[in-house]
Amino acid sequence: MRRTLTSALPHATPGEEVRLQGWVHRRRELAKVTFLVVRDRAGLAQVVLPAGTELPPEETPIEVVGTATANAQAPGGVEVTDATVTALGEAADTPAVELWRPTLETGLPTMLDHAATTWRHPVQRAKWEVAAASLRGFRETLDAQDFTEVHSPKLVEQATESGATVFEVDYFGRPAYLAQSPQFYKQVLVGIFERVYEVGPVFRAEPHDTVRHLAEYVSLDVELGFVRDHHEVMECLRDVVAGMVEGVRRYAGAAVERLGIDVPDVPEKIPTLHFRDALEIAGAPSDEPDLSPAHERALGEWAMAEHGSDFVFVEGYPTANRAFYSHPDPEDPRWSRSFDLIFRGIELVSGAQRMHRYDEYVRTLEQRGYPYAPYASYVEAFRRGIPPHGGFAIGLERWVGRLVEAPNIREVTLFPRDLHRLAP
Amino acid sequence: MRRTLTSALPHATPGEEVRLQGWVHRRRELAKVTFLVVRDRAGLAQVVLPAGTELPPEETPIEVVGTATANAQAPGGVEVTDATVTALGEAADTPAVELWRPTLETGLPTMLDHAATTWRHPVQRAKWEVAAASLRGFRETLDAQDFTEVHSPKLVEQATESGATVFEVDYFGRPAYLAQSPQFYKQVLVGIFERVYEVGPVFRAEPHDTVRHLAEYVSLDVELGFVRDHHEVMECLRDVVAGMVEGVRRYAGAAVERLGIDVPDVPEKIPTLHFRDALEIAGAPSDEPDLSPAHERALGEWAMAEHGSDFVFVEGYPTANRAFYSHPDPEDPRWSRSFDLIFRGIELVSGAQRMHRYDEYVRTLEQRGYPYAPYASYVEAFRRGIPPHGGFAIGLERWVGRLVEAPNIREVTLFPRDLHRLAP
Repeated sequence: MRRTLTSALPHATPGEEVRLQGWVHRRRELAKVTFLVVRDRAGLAQVVLPAGTELPPEETPIEVVGTATANAQAPGGVEVTDATVTALGEAADTPAVELWRPTLETGLPTMLDHAATTWRHPVQRAKWEVAAASLRGFRETLDAQDFTEVHSPKLVEQATESGATVFEVDYFGRPAYLAQSPQFYKQVLVGIFERVYEVGPVFRAEPHDTVRHLAEYVSLDVELGFVRDHHEVMECLRDVVAGMVEGVRRYAGAAVERLGIDVPDVPEKIPTLHFRDALEIAGAPSDEPDLSPAHERALGEWAMAEHGSDFVFVEGYPTANRAFYSHPDPEDPRWSRSFDLIFRGIELVSGAQRMHRYDEYVRTLEQRGYPYAPYASYVEAFRRGIPPHGGFAIGLERWVGRLVEAPNIREVTLFPRDLHRLAP
Repeated sequence: MRRTLTSALPHATPGEEVRLQGWVHRRRELAKVTFLVVRDRAGLAQVVLPAGTELPPEETPIEVVGTATANAQAPGGVEVTDATVTALGEAADTPAVELWRPTLETGLPTMLDHAATTWRHPVQRAKWEVAAASLRGFRETLDAQDFTEVHSPKLVEQATESGATVFEVDYFGRPAYLAQSPQFYKQVLVGIFERVYEVGPVFRAEPHDTVRHLAEYVSLDVELGFVRDHHEVMECLRDVVAGMVEGVRRYAGAAVERLGIDVPDVPEKIPTLHFRDALEIAGAPSDEPDLSPAHERALGEWAMAEHGSDFVFVEGYPTANRAFYSHPDPEDPRWSRSFDLIFRGIELVSGAQRMHRYDEYVRTLEQRGYPYAPYASYVEAFRRGIPPHGGFAIGLERWVGRLVEAPNIREVTLFPRDLHRLAP
């Protein structure tokens, strides 16, 4: 007999014999009857058993064979009666959290210590269903636009972006580093594939302990060549975010419902502010070099009030304050062809057109007082003909975190890594 | 004017004005005419210019605006005439390899030293187009079967599988390790999602220097719960490989043609041998504990001769010789519920049903004389109700390497990492 998922049980013919597999989600012993709630990847189902039936403890994997029976009170209108319950593994130890409760009332450290159990909760699990659906939408959008998926090495010889925040690795007796981003690789890969994306881990030895930072997270990196300027990169990003939203709607509808979240609409044209105007709207002094979280919140409110948009682009950040490979605005090089995408008041994505000429790189390193040697192999690559290009990076956990309104990014990370946490 | 890809040029209306973007692939100065071959991500196109036209060197990014003109001698039957050529970046330095030659006649070390340029060669680039298409097929197959994509941490506290071959990381002043596989995580994630897959880097501090080993590679990991036995896992793997092949056919047809490779058919039912029979067919002594590369070649030949199949499964490897978490055959625990998939005479995939009971893990660790402490958090997870499950891992580079008949796995790795190589 084939397995019936709990989501298919409401469609079973009454009287039909069915076979469920899943976990003991909850046992309820009443005077005249015992209720068993079975949880599988698709949802929950109710099984009715005689009073006094011995059942294995919560979280034990089981198989239930019984009769599909209409009952308006049961979830989905169908329950299983005349059932035989068989354990498919050992009787589970009582979990540290009560997974059958509608919401978990446990502190975050306990939840993370027991992540492999905690995230079984249907509402908790939904966050990674949303993440997976977002990734499907991300890739579908870029595949349709002729991008090539690549994988760049995570073990690198040089700490290119900023030496202070890299993890050092003992690489066969010599030092190597964990890549902070695929920045170098995705830029040179434009020379091969024109358009590339990568989904992979990035590593930041951030010594601070905040609700927004992780030592390891999943970065969605995109880079495309033959662009006019950063606006073409922003158009691509708009399509990518719209694709991610569409992915969530299409592939994680049930998870969205369980989470009770509001999936945003992505406008055809996302409202766009120059950095100078953004400062003014945020009520910041005109000589601020960057936007603070408070400014970003204000801009999020402005975008919603003025344009009914959950998203707002800020472009033209001060060149001196962006990564050195950002392309300066040719008309006024104090400003750069860079942008951030703010989603509901939080910076979600950073991107830019990059410089593509060797000379510009050499000059910029000099101006910033950076030594040439650590950047040599990166910069030399621009002698081999790299076209105008740009790109962006989306932090997967940050995206999901904002979407589900998680107060701490660790709540949307299966097994977070930070200053204090390296397990499970 | 919109950009025309070289692949679209044959469909342009003769006399139409077109705009190409790409690289100077080759310049040929004849007595009466100058030929320029432009390369973009889609292919090559011929541009005809007056004799003596000054052109930037090979690999310079350019834009060409001109007239589409029918010419039976041109690739695709259409070339560009009356053209203006504009450089889109600096004049490129002469590459270390001549990319316009039909095949590269350079030694592997030179090719790898200049990977960012070497792989621009249309035949070279095709290998990663095949890799990306394989991944699309991999994910499409599993998405359709209700798997959830996950990302497990690469920084881990314990070197679970084998302490000798892990890279150590300085993690905020204490030791951490780079994950050799997501084995532990994918098993416990079965408890959350039932069916999971992950595409990500794995790290092996392999001290040997062979044509088959890398220190970092891309692993395609799959794990599924509620299986009867390993045969259900093998059925899943068969579908996955068929999906990868289908992905290559559908999304990388042009790359397949450039490479001139023979894409295999995956039989509905892949021929399957028990390990004991495999030894006999390979002409090996019946007490051999494992299959050598020569045995695998012999089995590949057998599968082709007897079944016309590029694939053959070997199941039931000796328990003592497989990873400790492999499920022993309940009827004869000397053999395990494990399998390898051999593709054209090379082991491509290893998999198994895993043990799912805490007691079995404790007993197995004892029997093997492994200490409990390093495995504690792994083994403890099985007290929380993990159903019968199994899975497998495919090495992406090994798959592509066998498909394109690369003699060395480094030829199908963008930026390989090994005992000697950490750059570019």
